[in-house]
Amino acid sequence: MSANGSVGLVQPQRLTFAENEPFQLDSGASLGPVTVAYETYGQLNADRTNAILITHALSGSAHAAGYHQPDEAKAGWWDDCIGPGKAFDTNKFFIICSNVLAGCYGSTGPSDPDPATGKPYGMHFPVVTIGDMVRAQVRLIDHLGIDSLLCVAGGSMGGMQALEWAAHYPYRLKAAIPIATTAHHSPMLIALSEVGRQAIYADPAWNNGDYYDAGLKPDAGLAVARMVGHITYLSEESMQQKFGRRLQDQVRYGYEFRSEFQVESYLKYKGHNFTRRFDANSYLYVTKAMDYFDMSAETGSVAAAFANSADLRYLVLSFTSDWLYPSYHSKELVSALTAAGADVTYLDVQSSWGHDAFLLEVETMTKLLSGFLERLVQSEQVALPAGFSPAASPKEQSKTEAAA
Amino acid sequence: MSANGSVGLVQPQRLTFAENEPFQLDSGASLGPVTVAYETYGQLNADRTNAILITHALSGSAHAAGYHQPDEAKAGWWDDCIGPGKAFDTNKFFIICSNVLAGCYGSTGPSDPDPATGKPYGMHFPVVTIGDMVRAQVRLIDHLGIDSLLCVAGGSMGGMQALEWAAHYPYRLKAAIPIATTAHHSPMLIALSEVGRQAIYADPAWNNGDYYDAGLKPDAGLAVARMVGHITYLSEESMQQKFGRRLQDQVRYGYEFRSEFQVESYLKYKGHNFTRRFDANSYLYVTKAMDYFDMSAETGSVAAAFANSADLRYLVLSFTSDWLYPSYHSKELVSALTAAGADVTYLDVQSSWGHDAFLLEVETMTKLLSGFLERLVQSEQVALPAGFSPAASPKEQSKTEAAA
Repeated sequence: MSANGSVGLVQPQRLTFAENEPFQLDSGASLGPVTVAYETYGQLNADRTNAILITHALSGSAHAAGYHQPDEAKAGWWDDCIGPGKAFDTNKFFIICSNVLAGCYGSTGPSDPDPATGKPYGMHFPVVTIGDMVRAQVRLIDHLGIDSLLCVAGGSMGGMQALEWAAHYPYRLKAAIPIATTAHHSPMLIALSEVGRQAIYADPAWNNGDYYDAGLKPDAGLAVARMVGHITYLSEESMQQKFGRRLQDQVRYGYEFRSEFQVESYLKYKGHNFTRRFDANSYLYVTKAMDYFDMSAETGSVAAAFANSADLRYLVLSFTSDWLYPSYHSKELVSALTAAGADVTYLDVQSSWGHDAFLLEVETMTKLLSGFLERLVQSEQVALPAGFSPAASPKEQSKTEAAA
Repeated sequence: MSANGSVGLVQPQRLTFAENEPFQLDSGASLGPVTVAYETYGQLNADRTNAILITHALSGSAHAAGYHQPDEAKAGWWDDCIGPGKAFDTNKFFIICSNVLAGCYGSTGPSDPDPATGKPYGMHFPVVTIGDMVRAQVRLIDHLGIDSLLCVAGGSMGGMQALEWAAHYPYRLKAAIPIATTAHHSPMLIALSEVGRQAIYADPAWNNGDYYDAGLKPDAGLAVARMVGHITYLSEESMQQKFGRRLQDQVRYGYEFRSEFQVESYLKYKGHNFTRRFDANSYLYVTKAMDYFDMSAETGSVAAAFANSADLRYLVLSFTSDWLYPSYHSKELVSALTAAGADVTYLDVQSSWGHDAFLLEVETMTKLLSGFLERLVQSEQVALPAGFSPAASPKEQSKTEAAA
């Protein structure tokens, strides 16, 4: 256990399947072979009952915690919540995180070679759904020899995956933690997705998705898409706090079009940075998967979708200033889960950070997640992994962290 | 007077000034000659006290009411509120509306020829402010021989102009009606402006603003900018009501990237349509003017900016679901005006239509505006224009319209 609460160096891993029999997709198309990039933190206990699957959001990856290199500046995307003594306590739990299908961080996606041609799929990659992403995760869990996950947890698109797991594989998990999410992507979310896609299509370098062997990528379009995204992840209040009307590197208006306000510089930096780490075609496919997400589509109602999942426990979290996935979406979800007869804990967390709160409200999240998981450990009688020292009990450790 | 409450056919007009002595801008640059495109509806009374200036929003024009051609399908942009018996009753008032400086509907802007080169200004057009736009309107009012306007009224960027009039020309108007606006453009608004501008810059056809003589215009970039705008003009609730998750021309998911959801088709249509009527460089300049808008910049506080404008009457309106110009901006404005000692009427109108409510909540707006203007007419003892028949009194007419 690291002194700083980090899982330390982690090793990216890959599972490849559907090499002979192709993987069936919701669209009717099939895909194969399929690679799923994943990471694990902590140890699986003897009876394999302490595994938690963390599901990532639009631009995330399997790298949820720790470092790939000793000198890496930035830890995994949810490092604040995953590690020894943290909310997802790696002293107690075996944490798994995998990159989604159609992603660009190691799992099969549009930038990978199409076996039929040997060239990158590009827009020949089949459209995938949140259901397809989850089905690939099921294959990973099978591969790891885990019959039942203790829990699936994620924010935003990660929350959709948690809901999909609960609705379609209720016998493969004990609990679900959907955070800052919705049971059906709203027209506002679809509209924002489509604007991002249109910005990519509008970039001539996109070239109908066929740019991998060209000198140019659709960076300008992808940057605009990401800028739109970044605005929606913040709140009006957090932007006031973070930037106000402050100017960048000047004291008076310059009356020209270079970036002048700090918020403009921030957005441009974020947009540009994103193009160095994300694939434009993946952006198209992953946003499309989110747009299709609608838990009521098959059954006619969200409650009916969870009819066979009432034995699970749910922790639902939303944030008061999140206008992208407004709290009322979570409240509707809670009503539906309750109507289905499930045991639901819900909190609308007071926060000014907008949608990004699920990554930023670490102290509150740690308390809520730790408490929920602690009760789950007790009710499910989950054994600690071998090698864990009772001297630094997880509970004490958690308290120390929270106080730090 | 038309039976249907329309002002009928209207004649676009133009005023050109600063032909010899250039027009000074806030930036320190100057411009000349300057043309202001405008329209008027109704008649000026004998003592020239019944004039109301209507100020338009980002994409508006001087064409606020009536028709340019007998067979025109669409009336001016605020035709619902301007006409005989309507909120801005042309039986009583002489209504003026002019296109803003840097616009593309007849007033001098980046698409006009630069006298220095004979070629379109493009990005050589000087950056203008809301203050500059208002100063051009003052020249128009001078030209029309009007010492004092009864009122300046507008929504969104139009509201900024109304505030600028009140703060800087308090002796030239009796009242201001800022609707769905703010006393300082917020970082969220600046961020959304900048994303729109980045979408235009990213379009190779923009060519640093030099595209007027080329075959191509930056339509793709401008369309993306407009799509972002359209999302922000609606509310989550109005999008749910208007589109939900309904598909366009199909009953099942197509699992492809053509537009599938109605909201996607709507956005694409709106974005494309905009490119046929608006100039991309004007979009850059007008959004930049909005970003600079900050009533507290000169004086240190909004209240101080209105210190000499306390004798005016104000009607401030906001809309509960407007997240672009949230109600609390109007409430802050009302506090500042009240602190300055002004007579302020404020209403946060219950509406699900988001920012667009100022164009859509016609019935409520008509009641509020008519009531406010009626009191103003009485307190200022405004005479009706000559030729007005008392048989169809404006009050009766207004009632008939509201009931229709």
